[in-house]
Amino acid sequence: MTRIAYVDGAYLPFDQAGVHIEDRGYQFADGIYEVFALIDGQMLDVDAHLKRLELSLEKINLASPVSYSALLVILNETIRANNIRDGLVYMQITRGRAARNHAYPAVSQPVLSVTVRPINETHRRHVAETGIKVISTEDQRWKRCDIKSISLLPNVMAKQAAVEAGAQEAWMIDGEGFVTEGASTTAWIVDESGKLRTRPLANDILDGITRQMLLSLIDELQLELDETPFTIDEAYSSNEAFSTASSLIVMPIIEIDGHKVGNGKPGQITTQLLQNYKI
Amino acid sequence: MTRIAYVDGAYLPFDQAGVHIEDRGYQFADGIYEVFALIDGQMLDVDAHLKRLELSLEKINLASPVSYSALLVILNETIRANNIRDGLVYMQITRGRAARNHAYPAVSQPVLSVTVRPINETHRRHVAETGIKVISTEDQRWKRCDIKSISLLPNVMAKQAAVEAGAQEAWMIDGEGFVTEGASTTAWIVDESGKLRTRPLANDILDGITRQMLLSLIDELQLELDETPFTIDEAYSSNEAFSTASSLIVMPIIEIDGHKVGNGKPGQITTQLLQNYKI
Repeated sequence: MTRIAYVDGAYLPFDQAGVHIEDRGYQFADGIYEVFALIDGQMLDVDAHLKRLELSLEKINLASPVSYSALLVILNETIRANNIRDGLVYMQITRGRAARNHAYPAVSQPVLSVTVRPINETHRRHVAETGIKVISTEDQRWKRCDIKSISLLPNVMAKQAAVEAGAQEAWMIDGEGFVTEGASTTAWIVDESGKLRTRPLANDILDGITRQMLLSLIDELQLELDETPFTIDEAYSSNEAFSTASSLIVMPIIEIDGHKVGNGKPGQITTQLLQNYKI
Repeated sequence: MTRIAYVDGAYLPFDQAGVHIEDRGYQFADGIYEVFALIDGQMLDVDAHLKRLELSLEKINLASPVSYSALLVILNETIRANNIRDGLVYMQITRGRAARNHAYPAVSQPVLSVTVRPINETHRRHVAETGIKVISTEDQRWKRCDIKSISLLPNVMAKQAAVEAGAQEAWMIDGEGFVTEGASTTAWIVDESGKLRTRPLANDILDGITRQMLLSLIDELQLELDETPFTIDEAYSSNEAFSTASSLIVMPIIEIDGHKVGNGKPGQITTQLLQNYKI
């Protein structure tokens, strides 16, 4: 079966899915994106993703080239055309093609592109049973990480540093020693007092969709939540740690900067959250 | 005459100059760029640009897909094919196409693209005689502005804010009230004591090529230089102000946040620098 991508109005064989070199996404990172988990043929948390998409677009004064109902049709048609049941649906909207000038063009023609790829759910579950390792690194990103923009070079560099250190994620540290978030995930710990801790929403982190869903779940399960920033030292001495993301759901962390977290195995509360996450 | 762009090994009609949607430049802003001024058929300050290009590539662990001598051939061939004498030569190198994952792909095939466009030298000279207006805005960029990366959304937003305020450039202010640089230019003042001031090189600003050339010229002309950061208040009360960039050379500033600079006309030292700049 030919792999298909959607680009700017057309469903194309994947190899032919291109954009112009003067698309502002390519020259200015002038665009935003979303990633949906696709499990058993269904995209998870669609409304929450679309709501965040709308906010990201607003924050950079970009209009979607299609209505949200049309977008849903396109996402589902791309899934169908690729015949994928478990995977990741990636979409981005850029400000489109314009002669290169920093300021927004007077008239822009935003470009939507969509790809779908399979993920091995069995593999994800297996990794979640083992847990992952994390390193910490200085948060070098810009001040509007609430915008889910494609201006991701700092995140790329942080993730690469993790991989080179034999880890799977980088947790980023602000100027005061507090963890902001991961290079592509939300950071959580269960602190020594047993409370679930994650950084409160502000311009310095993304409003993670899995984070949103987990807040409801934590409430339902009557677990104790404390949305205050935690330091990397608190993370080292935490009972449990995990990262969340649409692609990972809840991913246990067993080591941070070489420090074993808890007993070095996925924590009990972490596992409870993963098992109870509505997918 | 058909406009031509160079992309990844081929000279193409401009409208057909495309890259794959999974080029990491498009999804991660994982790439760097350079802009050369082309005056009377010659690119300015080529060696300095190539040296900076090399540093940017090193800093993100990216290898140029072509040797520097081959790059020069490609740049000049693109200029020739477009038959442009006065213009801007734009080039970028991205990490190329790879399945979307933040970390660098194990094997990458970097993509070089080159465009050339005419500029109206008469218009630039006319604007330089009048001067431009600048606004100040919070510097929201990442901490590695020494890398000339395409991760430019913050710069785009700053420039757009300037345009919406009826200005032509945005000077960005760090957390301590000091000017870092413009959205696409280096910031300079002639302070009340008559000294030329510009921020010293560090990770928070770009090592501007025009800045480098101006430092030599300032020395030749025996003008007084003080590479210490200046505040926006010092800029308001400065004798003269200007921005430098390859595309502008030396551009006088006559107003900052509505405050008239000096007598509201291009300053004497500014004009002297522009007239003596070796082009």
